[in-house]
Formats: sequence, C-alpha cells, structure tokens
Amino acid sequence: MTAETRPERYAYLGPQGTFTEAALMSLPGAADVEQLPLATVPAVLDALRRGDADSAVVALENSVEGSVPTTLDELATGEPLRIVAEVHLPVSFALLVRPGTALADIKTVASHPIAQPQCRRWLAENVPDAEWRAATSNAEAAQHVADGHYDAALAGSFAAARYGLAVLAEDIHDVADAVTRFVQLRRPCTPPPATGMDRTSVVAFIGEDHPGALLEILTEFSVRGINLSLIQSRPTGAGLGSYLFWMDLEGHVDDARVGEALMGLRRICADVRFIGSYPRADRVRPEIRRGTHDADFTEAAAWLTTLRTAHP
Amino acid sequence: MTAETRPERYAYLGPQGTFTEAALMSLPGAADVEQLPLATVPAVLDALRRGDADSAVVALENSVEGSVPTTLDELATGEPLRIVAEVHLPVSFALLVRPGTALADIKTVASHPIAQPQCRRWLAENVPDAEWRAATSNAEAAQHVADGHYDAALAGSFAAARYGLAVLAEDIHDVADAVTRFVQLRRPCTPPPATGMDRTSVVAFIGEDHPGALLEILTEFSVRGINLSLIQSRPTGAGLGSYLFWMDLEGHVDDARVGEALMGLRRICADVRFIGSYPRADRVRPEIRRGTHDADFTEAAAWLTTLRTAHP
Amino acid sequence: MTAETRPERYAYLGPQGTFTEAALMSLPGAADVEQLPLATVPAVLDALRRGDADSAVVALENSVEGSVPTTLDELATGEPLRIVAEVHLPVSFALLVRPGTALADIKTVASHPIAQPQCRRWLAENVPDAEWRAATSNAEAAQHVADGHYDAALAGSFAAARYGLAVLAEDIHDVADAVTRFVQLRRPCTPPPATGMDRTSVVAFIGEDHPGALLEILTEFSVRGINLSLIQSRPTGAGLGSYLFWMDLEGHVDDARVGEALMGLRRICADVRFIGSYPRADRVRPEIRRGTHDADFTEAAAWLTTLRTAHP
Amino acid sequence: MTAETRPERYAYLGPQGTFTEAALMSLPGAADVEQLPLATVPAVLDALRRGDADSAVVALENSVEGSVPTTLDELATGEPLRIVAEVHLPVSFALLVRPGTALADIKTVASHPIAQPQCRRWLAENVPDAEWRAATSNAEAAQHVADGHYDAALAGSFAAARYGLAVLAEDIHDVADAVTRFVQLRRPCTPPPATGMDRTSVVAFIGEDHPGALLEILTEFSVRGINLSLIQSRPTGAGLGSYLFWMDLEGHVDDARVGEALMGLRRICADVRFIGSYPRADRVRPEIRRGTHDADFTEAAAWLTTLRTAHP
Repeated sequence: MTAETRPERYAYLGPQGTFTEAALMSLPGAADVEQLPLATVPAVLDALRRGDADSAVVALENSVEGSVPTTLDELATGEPLRIVAEVHLPVSFALLVRPGTALADIKTVASHPIAQPQCRRWLAENVPDAEWRAATSNAEAAQHVADGHYDAALAGSFAAARYGLAVLAEDIHDVADAVTRFVQLRRPCTPPPATGMDRTSVVAFIGEDHPGALLEILTEFSVRGINLSLIQSRPTGAGLGSYLFWMDLEGHVDDARVGEALMGLRRICADVRFIGSYPRADRVRPEIRRGTHDADFTEAAAWLTTLRTAHP
Repeated sequence: MTAETRPERYAYLGPQGTFTEAALMSLPGAADVEQLPLATVPAVLDALRRGDADSAVVALENSVEGSVPTTLDELATGEPLRIVAEVHLPVSFALLVRPGTALADIKTVASHPIAQPQCRRWLAENVPDAEWRAATSNAEAAQHVADGHYDAALAGSFAAARYGLAVLAEDIHDVADAVTRFVQLRRPCTPPPATGMDRTSVVAFIGEDHPGALLEILTEFSVRGINLSLIQSRPTGAGLGSYLFWMDLEGHVDDARVGEALMGLRRICADVRFIGSYPRADRVRPEIRRGTHDADFTEAAAWLTTLRTAHP
Repeated sequence: MTAETRPERYAYLGPQGTFTEAALMSLPGAADVEQLPLATVPAVLDALRRGDADSAVVALENSVEGSVPTTLDELATGEPLRIVAEVHLPVSFALLVRPGTALADIKTVASHPIAQPQCRRWLAENVPDAEWRAATSNAEAAQHVADGHYDAALAGSFAAARYGLAVLAEDIHDVADAVTRFVQLRRPCTPPPATGMDRTSVVAFIGEDHPGALLEILTEFSVRGINLSLIQSRPTGAGLGSYLFWMDLEGHVDDARVGEALMGLRRICADVRFIGSYPRADRVRPEIRRGTHDADFTEAAAWLTTLRTAHP
Repeated sequence: MTAETRPERYAYLGPQGTFTEAALMSLPGAADVEQLPLATVPAVLDALRRGDADSAVVALENSVEGSVPTTLDELATGEPLRIVAEVHLPVSFALLVRPGTALADIKTVASHPIAQPQCRRWLAENVPDAEWRAATSNAEAAQHVADGHYDAALAGSFAAARYGLAVLAEDIHDVADAVTRFVQLRRPCTPPPATGMDRTSVVAFIGEDHPGALLEILTEFSVRGINLSLIQSRPTGAGLGSYLFWMDLEGHVDDARVGEALMGLRRICADVRFIGSYPRADRVRPEIRRGTHDADFTEAAAWLTTLRTAHP
C-alpha cells in the first residue's frame, strides 16, 4: 500500500461499541478509515496532536459517555486542534443482557456514570430492585455483562452484536429528543468551506474578572446579528476570578459578520482561540439579519472608501 | 490677478458685524479671503453649493444668531456639503449704544430673538424697564440703533466700530462658559487629515419608527469605544414616525474604529450621510479605549487571515 | 363674576394671529379662557410661574415661529413646570396681502426667520424676485403688511381676518406632512390620568461627560420595552462637557414600566427632571412589549415576595 | 432522644472518603449531623426531596468526583430545592497505595474518570508506565487498592486512614489554585440572611430559541450593576432549540438590585427558577456600582411617588 492510499486513522473514545464509535461511523468515508479506540478524551486528543492519528472524534455536548467538561477544557487550553465536522446522535439506550436473561432476573445494571441519570426513571419502573454499577464506558459495561460480572448494561444497541449480547429493551431514555453532539477534530487546518448552514466554535479568555465582560463579548456578536447556540463559562485554572467562555455561534469564519465579530473579540479579550467553523449537523439555515449579509459588508466598505477619499 | 491667486470667497450669515463673521475671521488665512455676507443660512449654503462661494461659515450649535435647526436640517437633507473645520466662540454680548447714551436712557433693546433669552437676567437687573425688539441679526440690531430706531443693541463688541456705536457694557451673558459652535463648510472633498483630536459629524436616517433603533445605532459606536458629543433627533419631514439623528462623535473617519462604526450604521440604517471629519476646536485629545486603536484593528485583521487560511 | 367662575388665563407666544394662538384655541374649553399674548417664550413661562397665568402654551418641536431650543432649555433648567397636554398643527402657511395685491406686485415678503426656509422653494417659484424681511413673529409680519411696510406676509390663514388682509395663496410649505408640536403647561400638579396613548417628557442630566452615559440611559428604557419618540442633547451651560438629554417616551409615569425606568434614571444620572405625562395628540396606541404590561410587573413582584419569604 | 434533639441527617455523594464528604465536614455543626452517603447525585437529591435527609451536599462546579451537569440539571428541572451554603475545596489529590508500595511498583492507578485529566501531567512524569483504571468514585478506587485489585488510587489524603492506605505523594494537581465548589441544599425555605458577601443562583428558561435572548437576560443584570460569576447554557431536553441558563450572580435576593433584576427575568423569560441566595465561600465583598445600593432604590421610589401624586 502506498502513502497515497494509506487509510486515515481516527482516534476516538473507545472501546469499540461506544456511542462515539457510532458517531465516527456516521462520518462520510468512515468505512475506509482505520479506527484507534483510546481510553480517555485526553488520550484521544493527544494521539491526534502527536500525529498518531489523522483525526479524532469525541463528545462535546450532553454526552452520554464522555466527559464534556474535559473535552471543552482540552480544546480550550491544550495544544490547539480544530473542529471540522459535528455529528448529532439521539440519546437512546438499549438494555443489553446475556441471551436468555429476563427483566425479572436482573439484579445489577452497569453503565457509564453519565448514562444512569438519563435512564433512571425507566430503570425505576422496569427493574426497580436492580442495583446500578459504574463502568468506564457503556461498552465496558457490556463487556462486564458478557463476562458475567453484571446482569445488564445500558449501551447502544449497536454494541450487542460485538459483545454477544441480546437487546432486552430499546429506545430507553427519560427525556424525549435529547441528542449528544460529537465533533470531529483535526490538527490546525483551513476550515471546511462555508455552506450557509455552519457553526463556529470559539473560546474567549477574560483576563480580569471585570463586571460586564461577558456582556461586552455578547454585544460583539449581537451588534452583527450573530446568534449563539451554546455558551459555557469555565474557570481557566489560573485562579477563581479568571474565566473562559466557550461559545458556539451561527455562521462561518468566512462570513463577513462572523469575521468582524471575531476581530472584535480579539481586540477586547485577553485571548481568543478559534476552534473551528464546520457544517451544522442539524442542517438548519439561520435567518440572517437585515444588514449583515456579506454583500452588506462589501457595499459598506466601498461606501467608506468614498468617504475617506473624496466624494459622498 | 490670475486664477492661481484669486482669493477664495467665503459666504457667511451676515451682515458684517455678526458673530458668524467673527468666527470666519478666526479661521487660518481668513484675512486673505473675500467675504460674502448673506441674509439666511439657506442662502449661505446655496451660494456654496452653486459655486458662488468656495466655502461657507454658519453656526451649528447653541447659536446666538443663526438658526441651529435650520443648519442641521439643511446639511442633513439638502444637497451634500462637508464640514472641514469648526470654531468655538464664547457666548458674550456687548450692549451697544449711540455715543452719549446712558443706561437710564435706554427704552428699547434690540437683538436677534435667540440672543434675548441668553441675556435676560442681565437685562432685568440693569435695564428693567427697557422693552425688547426683534431684529433679523444682532448686526441689524446695531444698524437700527445707529439709525436711531432703537436705543441699544445686544451684539458682539467687535460690531461697535463698524456701526459707529459705543460699548456701554461688555461680557453680558446669563450662563458662564457658554460657547457657540460654528462650522466651516466646503463642497464634498477629501477630509482634512486626522490629528488625533478630531470630530466626525454624521446623520443617520431611521426608515420606520422601530423601537430600539437609536439603541442599535448607539451600540455600533459604544461597541467600538466611540463617544458621542452631540445627538439630536429631528423629524425628516417625511411624516411623524420618520426621524433622523445628527451625531457628533470623537474621532476621524480615517480611524479604524470610526470607519467600522460608520460601516455598521450604513448596514443597519435606511440611509447615512457623512458630514465630515475635522479637528476639534477645543483640542481635547479623547482617551482611546483598550482594543480600539488602529494597531488593534490591524493586528486583529492579520489574526483573522490566519484563521481563514490555515493555522492558529 | 365670583372667584369660582373667573375664567382661567392662558399665556402664549403672541401676538394674536400666531400659530401658537391657533394651538391654544384647539384645546378643550379654549373658548372660555382669557388669553394673555406675550412677546417671548421666557415671558410666557414666567407669567405662569409667577401666577399671572394659570396655564401656558408654547411650541416645543419643529416650531415655525417660536424658538424650540429656548422652550427646551427653559423647561429643563428654569423653575419647574409640567406639560399637561400637547397639540399638533400642520406646518402650512398662507401668503397674506392687502386686498388687491397680485403676485406680480410683491417686492417684499415678511415672516418670522424660521418660517422662511420652510417656504423658500415655493417663494423661489412663485415670487422669485421678492426680497425676504424678518419679523419677530408671523403675526407681526402681517401687521407690517397691513401698515404698508411690506407687500406680503407668510402667516397662518387664520391671521388674515384679524389684520384685514387677503389670502393670496394657501397651504404653502416645502415639506409635506410637517407638523409643529405645541405643549400646554401648568405649575407642578398631578399628571392627567393615563389613557393608554400617552407621552412622558423627562430631562436627564449627565454630571461628567463619561463615555456611554447616553447608552446607559437608553438601556434603562429599552430593557423595559419603552420607545423614545424624541431625544435632544443640550449643553447645560455649566461647561462644554456637561450635557442634558431631553427625551419624550411612549407611556405614562403611572405605567409600571415607565415608573421603574424613571427610577433607574434617577439612580444613575446626576439629576432627572420629570416634565410631565400627557395624552398623545396623534392618539397612537403603542405596542407594549411582552412582559412589560402592568400586570407583568405585579405578578413578578408577587413572585419575588415568595422567593424572599419562603417557598418557590 | 427526643425529636428536638434528633441530629439532622445530611445526604451526600459517597462513599465515605470522597471530597464531598470532606466538604460536608467543613460545614458549621457538621460534627453533630448524621451522614447518609449515597451512590449518585440524583439519589442524594431525591433523599432530600423525600425527607429521608434534612439537607444534602453535592458538587456543583469543576467537580473532581461528581457530575456537575447532573447537579445543574437536577436542580434546574427536578423537584425544587434550595442552595443555602457553599464550600470551596482546593483540587488536590494524594496518591494512595498499600503500605510498602513504591512508585516503581505501580502498574495501575485508579480514580474517578474526572480526576484523571486533572493529574495526567503528574502521572506522565512520575508513573509514566502505569495504566489508568476507572472507578465510580475516588473512594471506591481507594477501596480497590486496599482490596489489591489496583496498585494506587488518586483520592483525597483524608481517605488514606479510612482504607488503611499510605500517602505516597500529596498535593497532586496539574493546575494551580483550582477549586471544587460544593453546595449545601435544603427543601424550599427562607434564604439565609444577606451578609453583603452573597451569591444567588438562578435558572432562566428560554422558550423559543430567539436571537438575543441571552443578551436580554444579561442586560437585566448589567443595567442594575450585577456581575455574574458563572453562566452555563444547557439544553432543557425539550428539543434542541430550547435552552436554560444557569447563572450565579453577586448579591442576595433581598438586595433591591437583585430583586428588581429577578423580576425582570421573570417578566421576559418563559420561566425562572430561583435556586437560592447564600454566603460566598470566598468571602469576597463585591463592589456595588454607583446608584445600585438599596438606599438608591428607596430614594428613587420615594421620588417616583412625588411625581405620580403631585409635585416635583
């Protein structure tokens, strides 16, 4: 096999059978990539940073099996990486058991700690006497069931075949329509082209805890008609008064309104890190406010030139 | 005399002896210009528009003898002109009389209608029984005194010699430190170069009377650290719900922060008219907010380019 | 006549035949009041302050014959008075002449200086060779025509009969739909009751010229869904950096949203003067933003009490 | 023992030996309470809701061993509870081993998944060849070491004695000065009295994903000079466009500025949940902006009354 045809290697939060693997498999061309399952989000990201992998897939928001704060903090403050795509998966578990197990037989249910609260109403109604056991991942929980340590695992139904388990119940979740958002990462690169249905992730660092800092940041977006779909404040670790804000915004860094807003952030914040512009998984086309299309910026720039050089 | 040496002609609100003439005379090189006194602000501006004059001087703010609303409306909605300089004169009147007249002799005091309220406390204390008479200008009032129609005129002390009058009292004004602001106009031209102590005048038109329109406009300035020194709303004449805002702001159209703010206005307003950038008469150097120097804009633009093209 | 039946006396900017008199006559019950025409806006307001008049009528905005800045400054900084009503009159002049005069006979046209620019296009087309002459008021101009000093006057057509003149042309104005706004004043009193179609006038004083002061003030309104219909900045006379803002807002001081906004101004401004709440002359019922009805404020206050005292 | 003297029972995220237990023990009077360790945050909160416990202690922010998103979501959307106190503990781990174990002997290190990334630089430098193993809690990891399953555990040094382990290294953390914030909860009750150094937690629900919703919310705080120390957006589970914002703000619900801001939120948001006002653990006294002291609100309210009833 020549260098040209060597398949890309994608690191992800494993083991095989996790939701993250399912997210990876939903990416275009995923069938041709070499998978590299790793035990923790930092391990996955470091593999990409070191060049052991060409890309990485991790959960970012409302995760069922990865640590969202860890992902945010790693991307915000570790060696820079870029999001190039996102995947939304519905939050929906299957109850996996060894073939032959009935609900009444289940004394223990294992899962990642974050899966448990998302199913606890279902568990209370269907296996009220079962005790819950923690596992490092839902896939590991399935392995423990296969090994006979526990009676049932909450995991994706796609994990059943891999571990030789049966699906005793499907589509388990307490909250309807919940999704987990995964992101595909690469080392710093040119963003994928704008599609008109894009999202941009950016991290703003506030040096001193000054009142109104967040309002200033949000005003940079609102004055240019840019809506935020996610905002999280996180301590930077440099003391309690020092914060960073992770923000997901509608639009692409190549959009004039987004570019000008990012420059505004750059000017007023202690630091700004661009995490990436990429197509939205939900393919929602945001409404663009009057006066904030690229053509409006181009026209205004031409007008400004006439003011500065001569005639109105 | 060749074309090269023909003196420039400056139109102003006359007649000779007005404060506007005093403002004109304070401009650099005024001694060499040909003066063209005219009877109304519109006449002055039209002379400049038609080319009968090369420049014009009129009162803009807190006038003592010209109509400020007329100036604003003419510049906002008439054929475009540009402010290239401003002059501040203290509001201070002299009481001009025919030689030999004493305070006790004064039965009538004439002035432009706008001068009267600025001196009425002084008049009430010093000539309590005198009646006030309107004149088209303070200079005309002085002429009427010289002609014997009235006993005294409120005018600039510089008008005394011209009309053969004596100064019976000086430095008359009810409010300390008041000034009148005059502007020098030219037909559309390249603005005078930035000095770091500049003012920019701009008019924004609001098409529909939508709540928050003014707040949106002010946010375009505040988000870029630009302070306003004057704001006036005026009906546009196109119905009661249609307004324009005249705004004077700190900075020059060549400043990056001002340029970007003007482009923002251009994008969100029904129309924007640039009236000019020119040195401040008070030579106050405004404090420039962190992150809004030209160098900050340049650095941010370079950073944005790296985001769009490749690497963080 | 007993004290109980003595008619009220209304001071106004005279003489008889001005637009201000016409505004006064349009007030309910005007037929029964005693009129007190006075020569200047300050004289009118002082008559009310001293008790020589029970009420006063002056032009406030876009005046054709009174000085708007004078009215604003007097109400903002003089001894306090309150607006209790407003009147809108269309800006429309008649050309008054002595009976028998034809357009071709007219060599001079007199008017208040503010009327001239509002008709100059008409004058240029219809009496291109006539010279304009200033008068203290349009009514005085009419008197001068009656006396034979001038050939024509720009004034309200209602002034013709009073001065024995003929109306040679009517409905003269360069701008369609322009109106002048007059206000009725009283000494401080309880505001007229809210009608749902009210306006409130208020003056905010900014102690130091600090950047963003106006934005802070406007935010107090916008955060409570209150729209401004007029804003004027005026120097206070206490130095160039010291400004006041006259603002007209939609709503009544008895409205919860207006009351809370005024308290906000009171807390952040160097000083605030309430000028009055009164029915809008245009009888436009403003849209009230979600969450800013009186009932919303009442419900929120009840909710807050439950938070503070015990239970959610 | 009579009912009067029965000790209060505090539920917390166990088992014994966790950081949460350490937080509980730092509360005033903790020595006299009965401890109820439970396996998950939902279990802890439900024990309090049902009355099985009188109070509960869980991690809220930057947790090292509990799920912060779970705590936020439970408090935001579960049956209401109130925060009455907070505790800050430095993020600092000990490496616990069976007595006699040396660094070179360590092949496996166990911990809660969230502890691992906070120590990984230390682990890479000190036990580069050790593999990491997940545990449900750091205390459970310590138990596994005591049982001989693993060689070392990352946990609080206070857990060593309980599990018969030795502290091989202390004060392990990659980031200096990081803290975990725990909160004490009770069923709905009157908030503890204001101390001048208070924090208020509140959750705002945005019904529709409308642009600028967050800006509106923040403006309600900023216009009243209230600073936020934490903001997190979370999907509500009712679809992707439906968000809630958890916000921690400086001040107490009994402060006038906080009360008015909360009423503002109540008026504009689909729903608002008050989570509690309680003394700040860091005892920082926030600067109160000019015009936002309680006395300013009281004075402004008195002033408004004079406007509405009669005289300026």
